[in-house]
Amino acid sequence: MRIVVDAMGSDSYPAPDVEGAVFAAREWNDTIILVGKEDLIRPELAKHDITGLNIEVVHASEVIEMTDKPSDVVRGKPDSSMHVGMSLVKNGDADAYVTAGNTGGVLAVATLGPLRRMKGVKRPVLTAIFPNLTGMVMAGDIGANADCRPEYLLQFAFMTSIFAKQAMGIENPRVALLSNGEEEGKGNELIKGTIPLMRGQSAVNYVGNMEPKEVLAGETDIVIHDGFTGNVFIKSIESTASMVSKLIKKEIKAGVITSVGGMLAKPAFARVSKHTDPFEVGGAPLLGLDGIVIVAHGRSNGRAIKNAVGQARRAVEGNVIEAIREGVSTL
Amino acid sequence: MRIVVDAMGSDSYPAPDVEGAVFAAREWNDTIILVGKEDLIRPELAKHDITGLNIEVVHASEVIEMTDKPSDVVRGKPDSSMHVGMSLVKNGDADAYVTAGNTGGVLAVATLGPLRRMKGVKRPVLTAIFPNLTGMVMAGDIGANADCRPEYLLQFAFMTSIFAKQAMGIENPRVALLSNGEEEGKGNELIKGTIPLMRGQSAVNYVGNMEPKEVLAGETDIVIHDGFTGNVFIKSIESTASMVSKLIKKEIKAGVITSVGGMLAKPAFARVSKHTDPFEVGGAPLLGLDGIVIVAHGRSNGRAIKNAVGQARRAVEGNVIEAIREGVSTL
Repeated sequence: MRIVVDAMGSDSYPAPDVEGAVFAAREWNDTIILVGKEDLIRPELAKHDITGLNIEVVHASEVIEMTDKPSDVVRGKPDSSMHVGMSLVKNGDADAYVTAGNTGGVLAVATLGPLRRMKGVKRPVLTAIFPNLTGMVMAGDIGANADCRPEYLLQFAFMTSIFAKQAMGIENPRVALLSNGEEEGKGNELIKGTIPLMRGQSAVNYVGNMEPKEVLAGETDIVIHDGFTGNVFIKSIESTASMVSKLIKKEIKAGVITSVGGMLAKPAFARVSKHTDPFEVGGAPLLGLDGIVIVAHGRSNGRAIKNAVGQARRAVEGNVIEAIREGVSTL
Repeated sequence: MRIVVDAMGSDSYPAPDVEGAVFAAREWNDTIILVGKEDLIRPELAKHDITGLNIEVVHASEVIEMTDKPSDVVRGKPDSSMHVGMSLVKNGDADAYVTAGNTGGVLAVATLGPLRRMKGVKRPVLTAIFPNLTGMVMAGDIGANADCRPEYLLQFAFMTSIFAKQAMGIENPRVALLSNGEEEGKGNELIKGTIPLMRGQSAVNYVGNMEPKEVLAGETDIVIHDGFTGNVFIKSIESTASMVSKLIKKEIKAGVITSVGGMLAKPAFARVSKHTDPFEVGGAPLLGLDGIVIVAHGRSNGRAIKNAVGQARRAVEGNVIEAIREGVSTL
């Protein structure tokens, strides 16, 4: 297998990106293609022992920075590591593309640049895999499409189901629509319009509408929403988890006895942090393109990049692209 | 002041509702009018020492249960405690109405029943007041209007600003729109359409668009959204806070040393619970009607009902209705 890693992706590129590539090459023995400024990549690679590893470097002269506007980068930086890397996938020189770069930039380059939308796909979906009380939930869309139509949500449900089944090994994954109530009459116009489409579709195991509480309790494997609602949803979860931890730590430190208690309880906090660590999962698959693209957090470290490569590998092995292509035309 | 308390509101009515009414009458010396089935209210009242308190009972023969469909109750239960209680406000026999009842039912009775929408108000807004890192934030809408237009959001911003100023004492409250990014280009069509309206309105102190993180960090006093997004937002916060606490407690109990630590740290957890306790605030003001309506949690206890009466009092004292009526026509 040949997997491209964007060496210019993460907030502190190229160190975490190159380290992740080395970790991945070591773990799976695949060929990892680092794309980006060669003069920055080579010295970074030299810091690692890469004897026997299959690591290639492909030069790209431009970098899409976190501060770049998505609308400017597609034509404005045609030799970026995103353009060059995705072209390798498009041309069959690589099987998947992994980046921790500017999400808006990835979306723009992916849909208007080399890879393009798969035939029959109305809109690509940016998913996320996040922890809940029982394990993991897959969510889509978390930001690619702020305004959606019912047919888009149906396709999101189909594409994420394929990924959950073929790349994550979940048999017949349950799909719920995120709503403001479980009852039939609840939901906005978009949700109400999507329900009959979901019901009529045997390729999607639709189990009903759910509120955030049920999603976090583990009552579904996949939760579907438009990109605006999904973005608010997932960021609310992230920032509340962080706020509650901060409040608890602050209160624990405020008293002598409670702070002794807090010290003793520290390993428990560490276990919770590990369970809710987004870097354990890797990244967010961007589905609906003519190739596998995984978008990792900008704050990724080497381990997170490696885990994102792991996701990409499972998607390639699971023939996710072929399954989406076959199925989407029959929806 | 004369304030109506729905005796048939809470999940375990009439005990918490009657207790809250007694607490409120004792604290402020106002007249509290308990509305509901007299044969259930009288024995409950007898459990309290009400010597010298101004408590009246007004009989209503029907009860809107939590399981009732909103569409069925407006005409289906015309002698409910909601109909009778709101009529008292409508007719000038009371100043405000407090209920811990079925939210959908309240919305239906309030907009189609006795009170009605205030002239000039396009849609009433159901707000919520919830804790963040620095204090409290007011949110609107959290469920009254799943689908909104920009003009509705502008009115929500105006009405919540009046409440924050005149009932909560916040000078020139900051108003943000909830969005999937702070930058200009972010947001769905609704948010993009609302921005120019907010900018052009001097009665609203619009400070920009915010993500959940900034809202929880205390960067705004009011956050505005449609009722679908707001419902998902606030329920995500509630259920994540509960999930994180559960995970931490579970992990603390899992080890001998960490569980000793957890015991010592217990007061810290209690302080966090108190800070994030929705019952400390009281309820959710429903604004845009011809009278003050406060909707408390169904799970309210006596203290929560009392606090909801306190909110209602401050809204009456602050002339919230008059200020909305005056201002809404000039928007």
